[in-house]
Amino acid sequence: MTKRKIVLAFSGGLDTSYALVSFREQGWEVITANIDTGGLHSGEGESVRARAEELGSVQHFVVDAREELYRRVITYAIKANYLRNGGYPSCVGAERLIQAEKVVQVALENGADAVAHGSTGAGADHVRYDAVIRALAPQLEIVTPIRDERLTREQETTFLQERGYEVSAKTTTYSINEGLIGTTIGGGETYGSWDYLPEDAWTYTKSVDDAPAEGVELLLGFEQGEVVSCSVDGAAPIAATPNYAILKALNELGGEHGVGRGIHMGSTMVGNLARVGFEAPGMLILIAAHRELERLVLSNRQQAFKATLGTTYGDLLHEAVYYDPILDDFRAFLDSSQQRVTGEVRVRLHKGNVVPLGSRSPFSLLDAAAQQGVVYGYGSSLWTGEQARAFAHMYAMPGAIAQVAGMKS
Amino acid sequence: MTKRKIVLAFSGGLDTSYALVSFREQGWEVITANIDTGGLHSGEGESVRARAEELGSVQHFVVDAREELYRRVITYAIKANYLRNGGYPSCVGAERLIQAEKVVQVALENGADAVAHGSTGAGADHVRYDAVIRALAPQLEIVTPIRDERLTREQETTFLQERGYEVSAKTTTYSINEGLIGTTIGGGETYGSWDYLPEDAWTYTKSVDDAPAEGVELLLGFEQGEVVSCSVDGAAPIAATPNYAILKALNELGGEHGVGRGIHMGSTMVGNLARVGFEAPGMLILIAAHRELERLVLSNRQQAFKATLGTTYGDLLHEAVYYDPILDDFRAFLDSSQQRVTGEVRVRLHKGNVVPLGSRSPFSLLDAAAQQGVVYGYGSSLWTGEQARAFAHMYAMPGAIAQVAGMKS
Amino acid sequence: MTKRKIVLAFSGGLDTSYALVSFREQGWEVITANIDTGGLHSGEGESVRARAEELGSVQHFVVDAREELYRRVITYAIKANYLRNGGYPSCVGAERLIQAEKVVQVALENGADAVAHGSTGAGADHVRYDAVIRALAPQLEIVTPIRDERLTREQETTFLQERGYEVSAKTTTYSINEGLIGTTIGGGETYGSWDYLPEDAWTYTKSVDDAPAEGVELLLGFEQGEVVSCSVDGAAPIAATPNYAILKALNELGGEHGVGRGIHMGSTMVGNLARVGFEAPGMLILIAAHRELERLVLSNRQQAFKATLGTTYGDLLHEAVYYDPILDDFRAFLDSSQQRVTGEVRVRLHKGNVVPLGSRSPFSLLDAAAQQGVVYGYGSSLWTGEQARAFAHMYAMPGAIAQVAGMKS
Amino acid sequence: MTKRKIVLAFSGGLDTSYALVSFREQGWEVITANIDTGGLHSGEGESVRARAEELGSVQHFVVDAREELYRRVITYAIKANYLRNGGYPSCVGAERLIQAEKVVQVALENGADAVAHGSTGAGADHVRYDAVIRALAPQLEIVTPIRDERLTREQETTFLQERGYEVSAKTTTYSINEGLIGTTIGGGETYGSWDYLPEDAWTYTKSVDDAPAEGVELLLGFEQGEVVSCSVDGAAPIAATPNYAILKALNELGGEHGVGRGIHMGSTMVGNLARVGFEAPGMLILIAAHRELERLVLSNRQQAFKATLGTTYGDLLHEAVYYDPILDDFRAFLDSSQQRVTGEVRVRLHKGNVVPLGSRSPFSLLDAAAQQGVVYGYGSSLWTGEQARAFAHMYAMPGAIAQVAGMKS
Repeated sequence: MTKRKIVLAFSGGLDTSYALVSFREQGWEVITANIDTGGLHSGEGESVRARAEELGSVQHFVVDAREELYRRVITYAIKANYLRNGGYPSCVGAERLIQAEKVVQVALENGADAVAHGSTGAGADHVRYDAVIRALAPQLEIVTPIRDERLTREQETTFLQERGYEVSAKTTTYSINEGLIGTTIGGGETYGSWDYLPEDAWTYTKSVDDAPAEGVELLLGFEQGEVVSCSVDGAAPIAATPNYAILKALNELGGEHGVGRGIHMGSTMVGNLARVGFEAPGMLILIAAHRELERLVLSNRQQAFKATLGTTYGDLLHEAVYYDPILDDFRAFLDSSQQRVTGEVRVRLHKGNVVPLGSRSPFSLLDAAAQQGVVYGYGSSLWTGEQARAFAHMYAMPGAIAQVAGMKS
Repeated sequence: MTKRKIVLAFSGGLDTSYALVSFREQGWEVITANIDTGGLHSGEGESVRARAEELGSVQHFVVDAREELYRRVITYAIKANYLRNGGYPSCVGAERLIQAEKVVQVALENGADAVAHGSTGAGADHVRYDAVIRALAPQLEIVTPIRDERLTREQETTFLQERGYEVSAKTTTYSINEGLIGTTIGGGETYGSWDYLPEDAWTYTKSVDDAPAEGVELLLGFEQGEVVSCSVDGAAPIAATPNYAILKALNELGGEHGVGRGIHMGSTMVGNLARVGFEAPGMLILIAAHRELERLVLSNRQQAFKATLGTTYGDLLHEAVYYDPILDDFRAFLDSSQQRVTGEVRVRLHKGNVVPLGSRSPFSLLDAAAQQGVVYGYGSSLWTGEQARAFAHMYAMPGAIAQVAGMKS
Repeated sequence: MTKRKIVLAFSGGLDTSYALVSFREQGWEVITANIDTGGLHSGEGESVRARAEELGSVQHFVVDAREELYRRVITYAIKANYLRNGGYPSCVGAERLIQAEKVVQVALENGADAVAHGSTGAGADHVRYDAVIRALAPQLEIVTPIRDERLTREQETTFLQERGYEVSAKTTTYSINEGLIGTTIGGGETYGSWDYLPEDAWTYTKSVDDAPAEGVELLLGFEQGEVVSCSVDGAAPIAATPNYAILKALNELGGEHGVGRGIHMGSTMVGNLARVGFEAPGMLILIAAHRELERLVLSNRQQAFKATLGTTYGDLLHEAVYYDPILDDFRAFLDSSQQRVTGEVRVRLHKGNVVPLGSRSPFSLLDAAAQQGVVYGYGSSLWTGEQARAFAHMYAMPGAIAQVAGMKS
Repeated sequence: MTKRKIVLAFSGGLDTSYALVSFREQGWEVITANIDTGGLHSGEGESVRARAEELGSVQHFVVDAREELYRRVITYAIKANYLRNGGYPSCVGAERLIQAEKVVQVALENGADAVAHGSTGAGADHVRYDAVIRALAPQLEIVTPIRDERLTREQETTFLQERGYEVSAKTTTYSINEGLIGTTIGGGETYGSWDYLPEDAWTYTKSVDDAPAEGVELLLGFEQGEVVSCSVDGAAPIAATPNYAILKALNELGGEHGVGRGIHMGSTMVGNLARVGFEAPGMLILIAAHRELERLVLSNRQQAFKATLGTTYGDLLHEAVYYDPILDDFRAFLDSSQQRVTGEVRVRLHKGNVVPLGSRSPFSLLDAAAQQGVVYGYGSSLWTGEQARAFAHMYAMPGAIAQVAGMKS
């Protein structure tokens, strides 16, 4: 009898190591898939592969999903200026969409009967994974031992050691999740609301104190809402390929200048409040610069409506509502809104601050008004004092009528 | 024949000085009103009065409108977390509402036939003044020589000098407007979009470079969305009376630490783009702290809906739509939404940064969940693995159905 | 050993009859609660009580929740002009909130250990019941045999008959749910999307054909958004007590004139599409009249924002999100918005049509404008031709500037 | 010296007849342009031309703008389900956009120095015309004698008669404006809010009394949100070319069945309330059918967000905000949202009623759910009772936590 095949989303950590061995003992043929969304450092991919093979994976796939993540998710997050609860560049939610899609794809291409992920049932990630699998491949069985069995880390360690596998003794206070969008840091202080993370909890960003006394000035170029060039203090531009290269460079440069730290706090789909530290310099810089350029070229109505639409868009992605067709409609709106978001923005990074210094664009509303004779603060050749007075008179009318109507009672 | 009476909103500057004398020569009996919304420094009120009397005002009124401005306008701006175009604590728009109301009140109480203000026709202020006058006292004539006659500052100066009045030689590059909410700085670099204001253009905030190496930690107390206490580095709390005392203190303290500078850019009611520097440390600190507390106690739906509603509310005030009854409805919503926004927030001011460190509240959603056994990141005693799995299954259903429906074509 | 007590929401139908007997056999002491939200016809309450006692209820409570339903739910549905998916006066969703609250109250007052309801797991009602119980009394066990055991009606019938209880042979094609807000009719044609309900499926409304050739004219009086008087063709007003009396009378009168039928179609919380017939003449008439009055007294901004807010409000109630604090904020907005919604509306009911004929109010915007000299379509004494021209000039400015900016590329 | 050229939007009525002769006497060379947006009946175009030539037009242009109006304006009004103030298929506002564009085009193509329109300064039309002219051709002078001179109809009549021109004695009580979208009827009763228009004020729709006892059943086919076919009681489909043919046919057929009458009431840009009767059967039928199909294929989120976006879109067009780039973004959203709005709808027209009977679509959410085993009202093969219970448990969690948090005070 042929064994049933399962594809396991494999990170090399304790949970998925336990799962791999456990599956084998249950009679599954286990294929492992390691999806890279920016969290792998140089060389790590190989050690993950080695571990998978050691634990008995019959086949190990590494999928580099970074360009796709950037193109399909990150560019829209920037177009939408999306910050969850007004401050957090949702690091994990949308990554899971791409990761789960890739795992499903590996499963379908290899004729698997099931897919497995190592999410617990306590957070939102298990809901995100399942949302994708149910929608794309409802025929696949979903196997989630960590969610179902609720084992402790000690039990998992013992299980592996009893079978002769080494388990790294490293037990960190914090649970770290790295990716292109950002790094999250959970644990300790973040389980309450009062305490801030200590200096040594952060992974690569510098503190304001440690950041250099001198800041740097960036020149960021955008085309239709997407960053296409970046130079630092007038130096030659950073190469813009692969598509996520500038974001990656800004993560490093921003972190060096104390930019990008924060603590996110917001409710999950099941109502409990999540609090988690994050480091995301690149996204915070790009959104600040992008937004400054939008102020120069978009109408107020566009900015205001986009803010509401963008928040709804980002929240749906964060909450694993990946397949509501409204996401396509939102993206169509966002793409349309970026037609004029082309130009350059000067931004200073300095001691934790991201300061937009100036911007310019062929679609500048300021230049268009000036071209017609309007200078803010001065007069204008486009209207006379008498016209201004008449405008104020008529503009006041609705309020004056409403005021009279309200005094009737 | 008795002279007709006019009440002039009088600041002591060139425009309104010209207006005062010009009105007298046209045969008006001129009453002056100086409305204090936070822009008067110690002793300035007296010199404005002296100037009014020198120029021929028959009666000079000083109205301290700071408490009313704080109560009616500023508290709601904070409840709404309002930042114009996503960044600017609208400093001037709402102040004009209160100022114009006070001038109208002086006019009505003194049986005046007309009111006058010194606004030009180039910006939004003339529209703001007229909106109030038309709604509250349509029978009053509105006299606006600067808007109508479009004189240059040189012409006004000559006019006054010919009549023997001294005119201060001070001609600054920048037009400065001070108030409780903030200070605006227009001119020079702000007429374009590319250049930042130079260091000496700022009036009282320090640069990041000049801010002290050591930051300070604030403990801010809120009750139903309003700040009620503030202590700095554990010292005795700042007195909270008059109602705007904490805001005023934070303007000074924030400015000392390099907090509060920015350049606002956004369209006016007639479509031209305004760009203006601002210093508003107090509002930026209070909004950051208030927002952090909201994250702890409001539902996601409240935060998201409030963001849209608050933007609309603030934009209407900024754009002089003062008498649409919807403003009352918005305030009713905002007041209701603040029922649980009571608690404390720790905030660090350091080298230009405003960092919320932690928060606590009797209405904390985090504590409420923990009390029921939920700890984010760990498991939860409130649900089993099987329940979590079932939830994910059902939660995925709408997407799975929509996905199938979409594949039909 | 004392028996454990359970309170069962009891309607007298097959499901809850089965549950009652089944619970007894499992050793529960069963208390029954029959919550009247308008679905009981004269005398029915007594037969439900008799059935409960026959089947072994140790105590039977009848709770008349109609006034509370009207006050807490229906008045806000009208203030919000809420129609689910743009057409359906959500009949069932909000009723369940009140029903479940009352059942919980009976359970708490009688020291019960558990509450039970007869909902299946296929629709939304079981979610609605559980939402209330978990929030108000998490310590109570929730027992739902129909959801858990998934018995067929035949199995339930056999179970009861084997124990000597008669079961009504009536098996209707349609599942009917009656209440103050409306009656729903599910089954047969409504399981697909193409067929309409046949004439004999409707319970009390007349067809357009059968409605009288002559219509009637209603005069409806509103105070702050709530209907307070109703007279028909000039006759003496219908008594307005109890608070739901006018709604009840309009259900009857509207039904007589062919008003109130429709088929609702919209997605549930788990993504499947529900289609169900409804008869709700009273709500449709009141919403049409209320909305006409709003057009006379509210600003356009109020109407537009209220439409969005009201839809969100109603959808949350429909979807059992009863305890998000945003509902309070929405109600505060709605109450505020109704301050001027006082006046009278003339409405014709005729052959299925509800036609607002006219309206008047002390807060009429039309009268307020006329009082100031504005007559629509004619000129206006409030502005000159030159002022109108200047207004048009300035009003066109933002578009003209945006147009120039857009041509830059 | 060559005469300056002016292009006059000419309808043949009193106002523009006066304008034409008056312009000639002022020394203008007058070109007339008659833009057909559906208001011309057979043969009327020729009599307008004859009148223009009689009064001295040197060249007369007739522009058939119906297809363009349908394509650029009407299809989006239907996609948006736009009804002004919740009831009125904005008949006039958007028509003016197209009319003004065409007049500008004639002016530019003929090297004119000025354009003229006959709008008064009392309503919104003069603002609409000027908005287009300023944006597209700011160099053209705008001449508006009716707005500027505020002559009475008697004065205009005398002016023409003194110069030997006949003036039709017809003075109707009502001002009628016909177009493809609908006909508006202003005057008499509509100047107040209490009285309804009498039977003889309506132009072509029948009353409920006069409509045939038997209704008709339409079968309407849609592709991506646009109506592409229409058959009546099973007869051969109405030809769908030109693109507005079905709308035109439904205006006639609906009017025959008493469908399409209403009175619109809503505020203008300057705050006074407009009330005006309208007849627009075709738009009301198409929007009702389109909306029913959307209920079958769109998610609830799409429907709710579209309602808000569509209202904003339609209101901006109605209020002459034609050149805000957000309109493009709205249209991109609307187009995207219609990807699945393909299918058929059955609609009954009967004694004033428009009743959607049923609908079907390859993108039906009902069919997609059924295909996966879900039948509303019955159970579902997609989930078990235990899963349903677990879902209700988890779904209740946020409310339960919020409830606990709220009791803390």
